[in-house]
Amino acid sequence: MAAPIEEKDPRIQGIASSIRVVPHVPKGGIMFQDITTLLLDPKVFRDTVDLFIERYTGKDISAVAGIEARGFIFGPPIALAIGAKFIPLRKPRKLPGKVISEDYVLEYGRDCLEMHVGAVQPGEHVLVVDDLIATGGTICAAISLLERAGAEVVECACVVELPGLKGRERLKDTPLYVLVESP
Amino acid sequence: MAAPIEEKDPRIQGIASSIRVVPHVPKGGIMFQDITTLLLDPKVFRDTVDLFIERYTGKDISAVAGIEARGFIFGPPIALAIGAKFIPLRKPRKLPGKVISEDYVLEYGRDCLEMHVGAVQPGEHVLVVDDLIATGGTICAAISLLERAGAEVVECACVVELPGLKGRERLKDTPLYVLVESP
Repeated sequence: MAAPIEEKDPRIQGIASSIRVVPHVPKGGIMFQDITTLLLDPKVFRDTVDLFIERYTGKDISAVAGIEARGFIFGPPIALAIGAKFIPLRKPRKLPGKVISEDYVLEYGRDCLEMHVGAVQPGEHVLVVDDLIATGGTICAAISLLERAGAEVVECACVVELPGLKGRERLKDTPLYVLVESP
Repeated sequence: MAAPIEEKDPRIQGIASSIRVVPHVPKGGIMFQDITTLLLDPKVFRDTVDLFIERYTGKDISAVAGIEARGFIFGPPIALAIGAKFIPLRKPRKLPGKVISEDYVLEYGRDCLEMHVGAVQPGEHVLVVDDLIATGGTICAAISLLERAGAEVVECACVVELPGLKGRERLKDTPLYVLVESP
């Protein structure tokens, strides 16, 4: 069970306790934060999305970028609620059109993130969404892709943060908002 | 541009015309139906999800199962709107808990779909969601996984159907609902 960051909102505790920790996945010593158990409780899933919607409504955000694959689960409901477009940021060779790519180092190896050319317009205000921030490598790659296209990333939103891995520090000037943190 | 199935609803035409066709992806002769362009228009994305929500509200569906990765984009907003849980059906080695697996043949090779044990309860009424049905192999694997766990798949919902590939016939007794079809 992950720890709530904002004790004030009673919904946070339910979210934190609905995240299952699976030890030694994907390798020994890693405590996998499994948000699929959160999705199985309709009220908790609703609360999770609502907390983000409440934060980003009326904030002049015209695009929500979700990181494959779990960012695709939380990003679209936020985009729909605030009237923004949804931009999928995908693993290599998944997007069919012309893309820009960003290589990055992640907790368990190397990877690459891609975005369709033309998905975002210069000057657009974008929210980046993923389920979890660990070392921050994936989210930094997402920010880099969007900024290379001329967009402004106004914030990154995750359900869970692993503060021990210091991903927040790598984001530098881009704000990070998370609902729960896990040791 | 894909052709609309229900000319009656004026929203369908907008959805059909927002889907980009990328020729020769992933291989020569294949016309890739790219729904990422639909997601870039907030009104059309809203219309797409609303058509599904209107169809499934009040239909006693307690779970929406989305197929990785584009089923993760359309499934969660439907689940949230109708008060259902969301079950991610994923590619191998992506789910951290104990899973059941289903191998299947797809248009361009072989693949496998997995679901967490315990994600669905025996007797639950489930809606399966994906962006597109081609040969129907992936969706049949999804139905099989859910039925092996004792659930009842009440319908499969996709944005696009490629009727020439006869995926609908493979679903047998499970109804299929699509918004647009593409030659």
